Amino acid sequence: MNNSAVSSLEKWFLGKIYDSLGKPPIRLVLGSEGDIPRHIDKPVATVSISGHRTLAKLVFYPEIGFGDGYADGSIRVNGDLVRTLEIVLRSMKRARGSGWASRMMSRWLDFIQENTLRGSARNIHHHYDLSNDFYKLWLDRQMVYTCAYFPTPSTPLEEAQIAKMDHVCRKIQLEAGERVVEAGCGWGALALHMAKYYGATVRAFNISKEQIAYGRERAKLEGLSHKVEFIEDDYRNISGEYDAFVSVGMVEHVGAKHYKELGRVIHRSIGNAGRGLLHFIGRTQQRPFSPWIRKRIFPGAHVPGLREVADILEPSDFSVLDVENLQFHYAKTLEHWLARYEKASDRVTEMFGPEFLRAWRLYLAGSIAAFRVGNLQLFQIVFAGTDCQKIPWTRAHLYEDELPAKKGSKWIHAMS
Amino acid sequence: MNNSAVSSLEKWFLGKIYDSLGKPPIRLVLGSEGDIPRHIDKPVATVSISGHRTLAKLVFYPEIGFGDGYADGSIRVNGDLVRTLEIVLRSMKRARGSGWASRMMSRWLDFIQENTLRGSARNIHHHYDLSNDFYKLWLDRQMVYTCAYFPTPSTPLEEAQIAKMDHVCRKIQLEAGERVVEAGCGWGALALHMAKYYGATVRAFNISKEQIAYGRERAKLEGLSHKVEFIEDDYRNISGEYDAFVSVGMVEHVGAKHYKELGRVIHRSIGNAGRGLLHFIGRTQQRPFSPWIRKRIFPGAHVPGLREVADILEPSDFSVLDVENLQFHYAKTLEHWLARYEKASDRVTEMFGPEFLRAWRLYLAGSIAAFRVGNLQLFQIVFAGTDCQKIPWTRAHLYEDELPAKKGSKWIHAMS
Repeated sequence: MNNSAVSSLEKWFLGKIYDSLGKPPIRLVLGSEGDIPRHIDKPVATVSISGHRTLAKLVFYPEIGFGDGYADGSIRVNGDLVRTLEIVLRSMKRARGSGWASRMMSRWLDFIQENTLRGSARNIHHHYDLSNDFYKLWLDRQMVYTCAYFPTPSTPLEEAQIAKMDHVCRKIQLEAGERVVEAGCGWGALALHMAKYYGATVRAFNISKEQIAYGRERAKLEGLSHKVEFIEDDYRNISGEYDAFVSVGMVEHVGAKHYKELGRVIHRSIGNAGRGLLHFIGRTQQRPFSPWIRKRIFPGAHVPGLREVADILEPSDFSVLDVENLQFHYAKTLEHWLARYEKASDRVTEMFGPEFLRAWRLYLAGSIAAFRVGNLQLFQIVFAGTDCQKIPWTRAHLYEDELPAKKGSKWIHAMS
Repeated sequence: MNNSAVSSLEKWFLGKIYDSLGKPPIRLVLGSEGDIPRHIDKPVATVSISGHRTLAKLVFYPEIGFGDGYADGSIRVNGDLVRTLEIVLRSMKRARGSGWASRMMSRWLDFIQENTLRGSARNIHHHYDLSNDFYKLWLDRQMVYTCAYFPTPSTPLEEAQIAKMDHVCRKIQLEAGERVVEAGCGWGALALHMAKYYGATVRAFNISKEQIAYGRERAKLEGLSHKVEFIEDDYRNISGEYDAFVSVGMVEHVGAKHYKELGRVIHRSIGNAGRGLLHFIGRTQQRPFSPWIRKRIFPGAHVPGLREVADILEPSDFSVLDVENLQFHYAKTLEHWLARYEKASDRVTEMFGPEFLRAWRLYLAGSIAAFRVGNLQLFQIVFAGTDCQKIPWTRAHLYEDELPAKKGSKWIHAMS
């Protein structure tokens, strides 16, 4: 843009955007002029907006405008990205409801909800189109693409993912010979863990061909093919009878209107005597997921409040035994991922180009910020049927030291 | 009744009642005839219905009819009462919805919901009319009239109530110098515990004059009057600013339509930086509380599902950090209470007469059965405001051995 051409209307819009963000300690710059706010001590970061068109997109589609602008380079953040996003989320939270951005946002959401997201993939690949090689660059060795559990904040990621799998197995008190069905198994790490260390027989469902192939290969290599069956199919097609139902990181993709159906699938699988665990990203309130994430990263994703999740469990009379919020564990998991991602940035750029690199950086950084400020939460819910005989007396067994993956033998739970 | 006068209509009704209970292994006897079912091997119990009028009440108001009939002696249970009720609840659960009793019940509920419960107290005193002396007969030494926490099933009741108070204090990570408001403080045991062992300053609200007087007296005796203020007032009149909000066994009395109001009271008290704990009887599904309990024991009580409780926490954007279901701990607590109650039965009869004795026996026995089969649940929910800085990294600190009440000094939480 022509530097001298910052009009008063543009300045007015810039001011409105700044106000709607709740006036964070951030400088907004349009071109090389139009600093907002005029006077600010030690701004945490400077956000530069390249010109008219980027500004207009920010005005009409605030969050998409920011995400796309950051990805294509027309918006630059000079300063720590995670910290900047965290500060903006916090100040937006304070200003919530009254802001012009939130009004714009809700209008925009009405619009998009009436439209399918056809042709919106553009330069950004969707999750399931991406190769295993991409995720290998920044996930742990076992390719666990869900929140880890860190017994202490300094636990390394590899260990924390194993600790998460043990946490899940202990929560459902898994024992040798039991049958587990897993809905949405990713690359199969948990299914294999349950078979290897807890002696369970597992049927693991997933609609991603690449992930299923990877899981089967690992099962073969580890001699677990007779214990773990990987099935390329939708959770709705789960058949068979099981002692336990487990789903880690799938509820987000199910969509609230299918919760009752998911509940029926669970009940059909474990009856009244079984128990299960749901691990998913949630919210404190029922609000739509970030539109940019929904549009560019996770199409169709919906992040529920606990109230909505009752639709899964109530109709079959399941008891909620335990809910744990691992919000800060997800922030920590994402910090590890982002650090590894940055280390692999040259390789990512080679594979997918600079716009993709920035888009995923924003996704990871924005997610860290969202979990830190509490816009996103991570719930693990343990539930049981009305006739379940396997309900732990207390939760103390979750915090005992002996873990099967550490001692290399089958773990027997201490309570019964 | 005239033994030969059991009409075919009466037999038909008896059969219908039996069917609606899901055909449990129980004998029903009308007068000395009319056994239902005709052939049953080793019935768990025999339920004798004295005559026409009792039968008619059972037909038209099944649960009230049973409760009142048991209390006035026109219905007798020959066999273990808790076991009998448990078996009936389980078999009713299996038969649910289809039964004639459930249809009668819902019609009856419509009726009673349009009526106030005026004049229904009859011979059965309501909770808050009863003297401290009555509760002293069967509660623990500190008069804690809520679910205890048993580190092991064999923990004595006195210890389990102390363990519950520590469990609550640890869950909110209470520290010396912090300000706590307690809504519905009973006889004050928890408020005093928080002050004595955790160094907190507590304002405890309760609408029961007798309980408040008792709490104040204890505070004086234990030299804690400067740390604990007992206030005879409704939770809606809570004023002041606090670090934490605690309510143990009050949500049941609030009523679902006041949940949003309760949420506003909490938010007003602790703002966005505070945290809190709600401990209450809940359900797996949204259903009305037992009509007999509501009519005779706890007028106005409502037992919520987790979905309803979202009305308290969602509007203020509180994060749910932890939900623990202590269903079996309440069954165990009630077993202790019932055993003590039976030991004191002569004294109870002297104080209130035989009908009262039976009504409360039924209430305690029925509650044990309801918690065992899962018709009732006990939830402890820990929540925090969006700016709360005091969120534990894991829940491991809840299961460490050192407890202030045991070691006699202030407990400092291990996580930070």
